[in-house]
Amino acid sequence: MDEFTAMSRVRNARSARLATADADGVPHVVPIVFAVADMHTLVAAIDHKPKTTYNLKRLRNIVVRPEVSILVDHYEDDWSRLWWVRLDGTARVEADDQLRKQHLGPLIAKYRQYLERPPRGPVIIVEIKTVRSWNADEAL
Amino acid sequence: MDEFTAMSRVRNARSARLATADADGVPHVVPIVFAVADMHTLVAAIDHKPKTTYNLKRLRNIVVRPEVSILVDHYEDDWSRLWWVRLDGTARVEADDQLRKQHLGPLIAKYRQYLERPPRGPVIIVEIKTVRSWNADEAL
Repeated sequence: MDEFTAMSRVRNARSARLATADADGVPHVVPIVFAVADMHTLVAAIDHKPKTTYNLKRLRNIVVRPEVSILVDHYEDDWSRLWWVRLDGTARVEADDQLRKQHLGPLIAKYRQYLERPPRGPVIIVEIKTVRSWNADEAL
Repeated sequence: MDEFTAMSRVRNARSARLATADADGVPHVVPIVFAVADMHTLVAAIDHKPKTTYNLKRLRNIVVRPEVSILVDHYEDDWSRLWWVRLDGTARVEADDQLRKQHLGPLIAKYRQYLERPPRGPVIIVEIKTVRSWNADEAL
């Protein structure tokens, strides 16, 4: 799978999984909805304004350790049809209300739910450094 | 969702995502097929014998940093039906050919592919320390 195909599959995916690690290096993985803003940027948002700005482990982790790993994968019982794409990069959290709104466009364009009720919490902006992919068909 | 329900959903899931971190604390996430061996143990295997025992980043990561985070999640466009279960714990790698075979039973029972062709690589054995879950229905 070339990088263009891989990123196309990522764009079309409805959800992904975001792995971060805390200050001690302990990994943490959560599901995300997300949008690809351009070839090298992915955005995800917190739907609801947290009680305090960084009151979610994924956000606290990114603040202390910006490296993230994001997976889009496809499973079915016919293992010849498995594939995955992993994006590794660095993330930052935009919590300022005016600035975070500048990043919501691709999310609102992708998800009707966000069009009807835009996310109100911080936005995670990921700079994609590497794209790795695997396709069972090609591996056989 | 109580822990019994959460673990039941995990058992029934056909795939999950395994997050590890390397010596520098950089996270890494891969898809896995897996089986729950008992209430507190999850197993996953490498299908093919790697060229060298730890010739896969997930294995090298576990050796230097045993903490892992595993996610089973359900996505659909009706967001009131989203749910996820996250298992956090510690992992070890069993590469010894006789010892690793002792852990294959639950994997072979769950996946026909493994019945026909048992995995030949190292087995990852995860001791589950905490089970966290979220159900959109309950959160609303």
